[in-house]
Amino acid sequence: MPKLDLSRIEARGGSGYPGRLAAAMAGRTGQRLGDAGGLTQFGANLIHLAPGAMSSLRHYHMEQDEFVMVTAGVCTLIDDQGAHEMLPGDCAAFPAGDANGHHLVNRSDAPAAFLVVGTRTETDTAFYSDMDMKVTVTGRTFDFTRKDGSPLTADQTGENS
Amino acid sequence: MPKLDLSRIEARGGSGYPGRLAAAMAGRTGQRLGDAGGLTQFGANLIHLAPGAMSSLRHYHMEQDEFVMVTAGVCTLIDDQGAHEMLPGDCAAFPAGDANGHHLVNRSDAPAAFLVVGTRTETDTAFYSDMDMKVTVTGRTFDFTRKDGSPLTADQTGENS
Repeated sequence: MPKLDLSRIEARGGSGYPGRLAAAMAGRTGQRLGDAGGLTQFGANLIHLAPGAMSSLRHYHMEQDEFVMVTAGVCTLIDDQGAHEMLPGDCAAFPAGDANGHHLVNRSDAPAAFLVVGTRTETDTAFYSDMDMKVTVTGRTFDFTRKDGSPLTADQTGENS
Repeated sequence: MPKLDLSRIEARGGSGYPGRLAAAMAGRTGQRLGDAGGLTQFGANLIHLAPGAMSSLRHYHMEQDEFVMVTAGVCTLIDDQGAHEMLPGDCAAFPAGDANGHHLVNRSDAPAAFLVVGTRTETDTAFYSDMDMKVTVTGRTFDFTRKDGSPLTADQTGENS
């Protein structure tokens, strides 16, 4: 049945970020709509942001196009040019390789949500704009390092605290 | 600027269907949001359906995943299982190669709209469920034939009338 029953698709929290960086994802959950419908070529996820939550650490992808549409509440898009308020129906596009790091933040006092679509590729690299970190993706393996490929420091991951 | 100004993205009508089949697309326009934002890996189009209009002739894709989310009004998804009403926020997914032809029809008396995302592939074949027609896509070339590859008949395209 192509029509999806969103009430039956789990909203998952958590984060794959290393160490204390994962804490930044509190208040964010995601429903993998495309996966639930059997899609493999791109992800189509409905992301729910509690007040104060963010979509991800600010980043850009080298190999994967990304598209978002706000579906509920008010999201603030943060990119290299500043902050841009987005209401339901507002859209943004992030071409692969465009070095303009971005994320969505819920600065309001009500829940917000958006649909995000991203290409699935066998490999990818994403760079984080506000810290010395990148992630190198191969299949299902996510390798977080500094931008020069060296290990993250204990200061970055909080493992020394 | 990643955030898109939808008021500046043209809503295009018309159809690539041959002959009289193009008339079925009356009342449908589309805004190519992903293209406007520089995306190339998938299309992300906002489709507007006047009362009585349809998204396309009912079909399925062999190589391209497809995802829709209704954004305004009421759409009716028609597939092999029948008619399914879809309201804003409702989603459907159509995996490549799943031989369940589908389209959205606006059976209401008010405008409706939906976001549709489809993978961009170099080649594709789509089969039409309610007539003896397929389209073979290579790059930007769309070759409409009968399902066995022979030319469409004059009865099909209306060229004998």
